[in-house]
Amino acid sequence: MIDKKGIQNQIIQAVETVKAKNPMVGSITNTVTINLVANAQLAVGGAAAMVYLPDEGEFLAKAAEAFYINVGTLLPIYEQTLPHTAKVLHEARKPWVLDTVAVGIGSLRTQLLRQLKEYKPSIIRGNASEIMALAGLWGLEGGTEQSNVRGVDATDSVSAARPAAVAMARWTGGAVAVSGKTDLITDGYITVLSHGGSDFMERITGAGCSLGGVMAVYATAASPFIAALTAHAVYNLAGSRAEKKVSGPGSFQVQFLDELYKASAEDIAYNPFDIEKV
Amino acid sequence: MIDKKGIQNQIIQAVETVKAKNPMVGSITNTVTINLVANAQLAVGGAAAMVYLPDEGEFLAKAAEAFYINVGTLLPIYEQTLPHTAKVLHEARKPWVLDTVAVGIGSLRTQLLRQLKEYKPSIIRGNASEIMALAGLWGLEGGTEQSNVRGVDATDSVSAARPAAVAMARWTGGAVAVSGKTDLITDGYITVLSHGGSDFMERITGAGCSLGGVMAVYATAASPFIAALTAHAVYNLAGSRAEKKVSGPGSFQVQFLDELYKASAEDIAYNPFDIEKV
Amino acid sequence: MIDKKGIQNQIIQAVETVKAKNPMVGSITNTVTINLVANAQLAVGGAAAMVYLPDEGEFLAKAAEAFYINVGTLLPIYEQTLPHTAKVLHEARKPWVLDTVAVGIGSLRTQLLRQLKEYKPSIIRGNASEIMALAGLWGLEGGTEQSNVRGVDATDSVSAARPAAVAMARWTGGAVAVSGKTDLITDGYITVLSHGGSDFMERITGAGCSLGGVMAVYATAASPFIAALTAHAVYNLAGSRAEKKVSGPGSFQVQFLDELYKASAEDIAYNPFDIEKV
Repeated sequence: MIDKKGIQNQIIQAVETVKAKNPMVGSITNTVTINLVANAQLAVGGAAAMVYLPDEGEFLAKAAEAFYINVGTLLPIYEQTLPHTAKVLHEARKPWVLDTVAVGIGSLRTQLLRQLKEYKPSIIRGNASEIMALAGLWGLEGGTEQSNVRGVDATDSVSAARPAAVAMARWTGGAVAVSGKTDLITDGYITVLSHGGSDFMERITGAGCSLGGVMAVYATAASPFIAALTAHAVYNLAGSRAEKKVSGPGSFQVQFLDELYKASAEDIAYNPFDIEKV
Repeated sequence: MIDKKGIQNQIIQAVETVKAKNPMVGSITNTVTINLVANAQLAVGGAAAMVYLPDEGEFLAKAAEAFYINVGTLLPIYEQTLPHTAKVLHEARKPWVLDTVAVGIGSLRTQLLRQLKEYKPSIIRGNASEIMALAGLWGLEGGTEQSNVRGVDATDSVSAARPAAVAMARWTGGAVAVSGKTDLITDGYITVLSHGGSDFMERITGAGCSLGGVMAVYATAASPFIAALTAHAVYNLAGSRAEKKVSGPGSFQVQFLDELYKASAEDIAYNPFDIEKV
Repeated sequence: MIDKKGIQNQIIQAVETVKAKNPMVGSITNTVTINLVANAQLAVGGAAAMVYLPDEGEFLAKAAEAFYINVGTLLPIYEQTLPHTAKVLHEARKPWVLDTVAVGIGSLRTQLLRQLKEYKPSIIRGNASEIMALAGLWGLEGGTEQSNVRGVDATDSVSAARPAAVAMARWTGGAVAVSGKTDLITDGYITVLSHGGSDFMERITGAGCSLGGVMAVYATAASPFIAALTAHAVYNLAGSRAEKKVSGPGSFQVQFLDELYKASAEDIAYNPFDIEKV
C-alpha cells in the first residue's frame, strides 16, 4: 500500500543516492535551454553530457545511467538520432524521459513523436496541452485531435490532462508528469499533486526543460513515478524559496540554481503534495 | 505631425499592450545568445519559441504575432529555412526583424542576406558596420562595397550609417535601427537618437541579439519604428540602471534582465531621446 | 633560463596586452556552453565570434588573431568544418586551442581528432582522461588504448597524464594543459602546476570549455605555454575569489565572471604556481 510517508521515504532515498553517486545522464535537447538543463542536473548532484549524432546517442544511451530526450529545436539529424537512441534505451531497459515540447509544430516532430511511442519512455513530461496532444497522436484516451499547443505554452488546464496522463502512463508502464500551477504526476494508478513553485518560472526560459533533465537524474535512483515527483518537489521548493529573495527573472534564475543545490532530501520530501487516489 | 509627446504615448501603449497580451514571437537565431534572446523576450512580457527547420519556421511564422531572424551562427539547413520563413512572413504581412550579425562572413550568409531583400523586413537592426554592409549588398545608398565588419563588432560610427539606414528603411517601408554609443532609429523620414545604456553591454554577449528579439515583441503592438525605438529605450534604461548596481559583466547580465522586467511603460517612454528631423 | 619571475612578467604582459587590444578570437564550440565561452572571452578583454560552416571557419581563421576548437556537441557539418578550419589555421600559423571534450565518444569524434594531429594545435587542453586518450589516439607516449572518459568527466589523475601531456607538447611544439584539482601545464620541457579554483567549477557546466576559450584569447599575446598558464591562473584566482562570496552554483557562475573581469594582471601573475622541472 502506498501512503504519504512511504513516498516521502522514497524521495529521501532518491535525493541522497544521487548526491552520493553523481550519476551520469545523457541528453539530446534543444539549444535554447541546453545550458540550464546541464546546470540544473549538476546542481542536484548529477553529471551531464549532451550529443546530437546517432552513434553518439547510442554510445551515451549505453554509458549513461538515464537519458533525457527533448524534441525542442529539432535539427535534421534528429530524424536518425532520436529513434535510434530511444530504441537503444528501450532495449537496454535504461530509464529515459521524453519532453514533448511544442508537439504539433512541424512534420518531423510529429513523425518522431509517433515513432517514440513503441520505445515507451519511462517518464513523459509536458504542460497540459502537450500531454493531451501526445496522447492524441498516440491514439490514447484523453488525447486531443487538434493540438492546442501555442508554441511552447499551454492553453489547457492540468486537470483536463489527467485522463491523457493516466492513459499514457498505463501504456508505457512508467510515469507521466503534467506541469502547471499545481503539477500532476501519475503512474496510471496513483495520482499525486505537487504544490509550490513561482510565477517567475514562466518568466524564464527552460524551467520545464531543466525539470525534465532533473527527472532523468532522479530516474537513476528511483522508479519513474518517484523520480518525476522528486523533480517536481525540488522545483516547487526551490522556486518558492528563490522567489522570496529576488526582484526579477534574472536574479530568480541564479537563486533558483542555488536553491536546487542547497535543498536537503528532507526538505524536498516534505514539500507539500496530495495523493489523489490509490 | 510627429512630436515627442506623440512618440512617448505610442511607446507607453506598446509596452502596456505587450504586458497585457503576452504575445508569442517566433525566432530563428544563433546558438551563442539564443537563451538570452528568449529570456529578454519573456522579461518584457512576450512569449518565445525558437526553431531551425523550414516547415517549423513556416508554422511559427503563421502562429506567431511577429518574428525575429538572426543570421548569426548559420547551420546548413538555414539555406532552406530562412528564405522560406521570410517569404511566409512577408506574404502574411507579419512584422519581422532582421538582425544582420556578421554580414560579410561566408558565402551562405551573403546569399541569404541578398535573398531576404525582397521580403522586406519590418525592422533591420545591426551595428553601423553591419547596416552599411547590408545596404551595400542590397545596392542601396550609403552602403559599403567592402564590409568593415570585424566578426561581430562594428568599426564604423553610428552617424556614418545614417544614409544607409534611411535608404534601407525607405526600401522596406519599415524601420532601421543602428546600435552604438548613441542609437539611431529611422523609418526613412524621421530619425531618432536614443540615449543611455552601459559599457557593460559590450562586455557581455547577446545585448544586440536580444535587443532584436525584443523589437519583435514590441512589433506585435506598434509600428516598426515605434517598436524599434521602444526596444532601444528599454535597453538603454535597463542598461543604465543595471550598471549602477553591479561590479562586473556576470552580475550586469542578471541585473539587466531584472531591470528589463521592472521597467514601467512611463519610464521607458521618458528615457532620453532626440528627434533629429521630421 | 626560465624562472618564476620571468614567467610572472610574461603573464602580466599577456593580460595587459589583451586588455589594451581587445583581440578577436574565433570559435567552433559546443552548444551547451557556447554562451559562457563567449562571455568569459569578453570578460578577460577579448572579442568573440562563433561559426559552424566550413567557409565561415576559414574566414574567421584568417580574420581572427587566434582560434578555439571544441569537439563537444558535434554536428554533421563538423566533418567538413573542423579539418578545413584547422588546416587554414596551421598554414597561417595562427595560434589555436584544441579542447578534447569527450574524446572516445562516437566515430566522427575519433576520426576528427585523428585528423587534427597533423595541424598541430598550439594548445591542447582537457582533463587527465581526455589528454591520455588523445595521446593514445595519436600513438604517442603516455596514451591510453582504452578511453577512460566518462562522458565529459575525468576518471584519471592529473599526474597520471603528465607523460601524455609532455609527449603531445613535444609533437606540436606548443603546450598541453591538464585540468584537475591542481592543473598541469607543459611545453614538453617545463612543467608548471597551477593552484586554486573552487569545487563549484565542477558543479557548473562550461568551466573547462570557457577556460579553453580564454586560452585562445591569451594566445593572441603570448606563447602557447604562457597563454595556457595565464588562463589557468586567472581561472584559479577567480574561482577561489568567487567561492568565498556565494552559496551555490548559480551565484558562483555570476560571481566568477565578475572576478574574471576584475582580476588585475599582477593578481593573475602572482596566483600560486610551482615550476616542476626545467
